[in-house]
Amino acid sequence: GLTAICAIVYRMLGVPGFDAIAHAMTTIATGGFSTSDASMGAFMDERADIAAIFFMLAGGMPFGVYMIALRGNWRAALSDPQMRAFLALSGALVAIMTGYLTLASDLEFARAARLAAFNVVSILTGTGYATADYAGADVRWGPFAFAFFFLLTFVGGCAGSTTCGIKIFRFQVMFAALKAYLSEMVRPHGVAPIRYAGRKLTDDTVYSVLSFVFLYLASFAVLAIIMSLLGEDFTTAVSAAATSISNVGPGLGGTIGPAGTFASLPDNAKWVLSVGMLVGRLEVLAVLVLFAPSFWRS
Amino acid sequence: GLTAICAIVYRMLGVPGFDAIAHAMTTIATGGFSTSDASMGAFMDERADIAAIFFMLAGGMPFGVYMIALRGNWRAALSDPQMRAFLALSGALVAIMTGYLTLASDLEFARAARLAAFNVVSILTGTGYATADYAGADVRWGPFAFAFFFLLTFVGGCAGSTTCGIKIFRFQVMFAALKAYLSEMVRPHGVAPIRYAGRKLTDDTVYSVLSFVFLYLASFAVLAIIMSLLGEDFTTAVSAAATSISNVGPGLGGTIGPAGTFASLPDNAKWVLSVGMLVGRLEVLAVLVLFAPSFWRS
Repeated sequence: GLTAICAIVYRMLGVPGFDAIAHAMTTIATGGFSTSDASMGAFMDERADIAAIFFMLAGGMPFGVYMIALRGNWRAALSDPQMRAFLALSGALVAIMTGYLTLASDLEFARAARLAAFNVVSILTGTGYATADYAGADVRWGPFAFAFFFLLTFVGGCAGSTTCGIKIFRFQVMFAALKAYLSEMVRPHGVAPIRYAGRKLTDDTVYSVLSFVFLYLASFAVLAIIMSLLGEDFTTAVSAAATSISNVGPGLGGTIGPAGTFASLPDNAKWVLSVGMLVGRLEVLAVLVLFAPSFWRS
Repeated sequence: GLTAICAIVYRMLGVPGFDAIAHAMTTIATGGFSTSDASMGAFMDERADIAAIFFMLAGGMPFGVYMIALRGNWRAALSDPQMRAFLALSGALVAIMTGYLTLASDLEFARAARLAAFNVVSILTGTGYATADYAGADVRWGPFAFAFFFLLTFVGGCAGSTTCGIKIFRFQVMFAALKAYLSEMVRPHGVAPIRYAGRKLTDDTVYSVLSFVFLYLASFAVLAIIMSLLGEDFTTAVSAAATSISNVGPGLGGTIGPAGTFASLPDNAKWVLSVGMLVGRLEVLAVLVLFAPSFWRS
C-alpha cells in the first residue's frame, strides 16, 4: 500500500513512470537501489526529494503502528514510544547537520536543510540513496560529515520496520537499563525496575538486547579486521564493515563513499561484505543459533 | 612492590638508573610516560623490551590475584578466570600480529614476534609505549595494523588492575549473557542462568555491564563527533576519541599515531580529549551520577 502511494506521488511530481515505480519499491523497503548511478540525484527535483524524505521515514517506522492506525485507533498509533523517539531523533540529527552546513559551507539555508534531511534520513533508515558526496571529495561537508554519517550507520530505524542496524527499540532498552541502574547507584536500597512505555521489561528482553549489541559490534569488528587484512585503508575498511552489517549502502571515502561504488573492490572483499550483509539482515543471532550443537540435537 | 622489582630488572638489563625507575613507574601503572620522545625505543635493548612486556602484563592483571598468591593460595590465584582469559587473549593477539608481520613484511620471525608482542601488549593494557610506527608511515605494518590496533584500544586489561578500557571481565559477562540467551533461544522452555566462574551472576551485574558498555560507546561517539567538528580527519578523530576514553596513549595516523604526538592538535581539541580521559578513568558512571538530581537530594 505504502509503495503504491509512494509511486503515485513520485509520478505526480514528474518522475518518469518506470523510475517512479522502481524508486517507490526501494524507498519503502529502505533498499536504496536506483535506476541511475547518480542515485536519486539524477532526475528527482526538489519536490520529489522532499517526498522521498517522508517515504523513507515511513519505511523506517514500526509497521505495527500502521495496522493500529488502520483499525482506527489513532491515539494509540500516535503515542507509540519507538515511533516518537525515531521521529524526534531524525529531527534532531537533521537540525544538527543543517546548522553545520549553513554555518560551515556556502549553501543557503533551504538547500542545506534539504540536503541534510535527505542524506541523514537515507543513512539513518539504511535506505542508502545519496544526493550529495557528503563523505567523499566534496569539501563543503568537511571532516565532520565523515564521523557523523559513520556513527549514523549503526543506528537504524525502528524494530518492526524494513530497516537494519541496532534499531531505536534497542537503544531505548539500553537507555532504560542505564536509568534504572543509575537510580540504584544513587539509592542502593531502592529497587528500580526497567520500564518501557510504562511497562516493566523482563530480564529476557534486556539480555536479548545485550546479546545482540555485543554480537553486532563483534561482527563489525571482525568484518573491519578482514577488510583491512585484504589491504583496504582504515576509512574504507571500517566504513565498509559498518555499512554492510547495517545494510545501509554507501561507505566513506573516495572509493565506496556516497559518490563511489563497491565495483572496484577485489572479489574476496565482496564475498566478505556479502556475508556481512546476510548476518546483519538476519540480526546475527539467527545465524549464530545454526552453529549451536544443541540446535541440531533437538 | 611490583614497581620496585621492575626497576631493578630494568637496571640489571642496562637501562640507566633514573630511566629504569621512571619507566618502572609507568610500566606497572600502565601509564606509558617515557623519558624520551622515542618512548621505549630510545635506549631499551631487546632484553629490556621483553622484560617490559612481562611487566606490562603484570600491570594488566587483577591485583587481587597477587594478594591471594601472597597469602600462599597459589591454586586459587592461578585459576582466576579473568586473568586466564586476559593472558589467553594476549597470547592469541600477539600470535596473530606475529604471523601477519612475518608473512607480510621483510622482518624475520624473532624480530616480528618481539615487535608484535611489545606493541600489542602495550595497547591492550593501555600502557601506550611504542617501539614501532605501527599505525603511521611505516608501510611494513600495512593497513591491517590500523584496524587491529584501533579495536585493541577498546579492550583494556583486567578489572581490578591499573588499566582502562572496557576490560576483560565485562567481555566475559557479555559472553556469558550471550551464551545463556542462545541456549534459551534453542530451548525456549529451559532456563539458562548466566554463570561466571561457576557462580550465577546477579541481574545487577549484567545491568551494570550493559549500562557501562552503552555509556562507554556513547562517550566515544560524542568525543569522535566533537573532534571531527574541530576539523580533524576521520582517522585522527575516531582514534583520538578511542585512545583518550581508554587512556591508552597513541592514536592512529601521522599526527597522533605511535610515532607522533598530540602537541600539534589545537587547544580546544586538547580540552575535549582531557575531559574524555577523565570520563574514561572514572568509568563514565561515576561522572554521570554527579548529574543525577536525586544524587544531590539524598
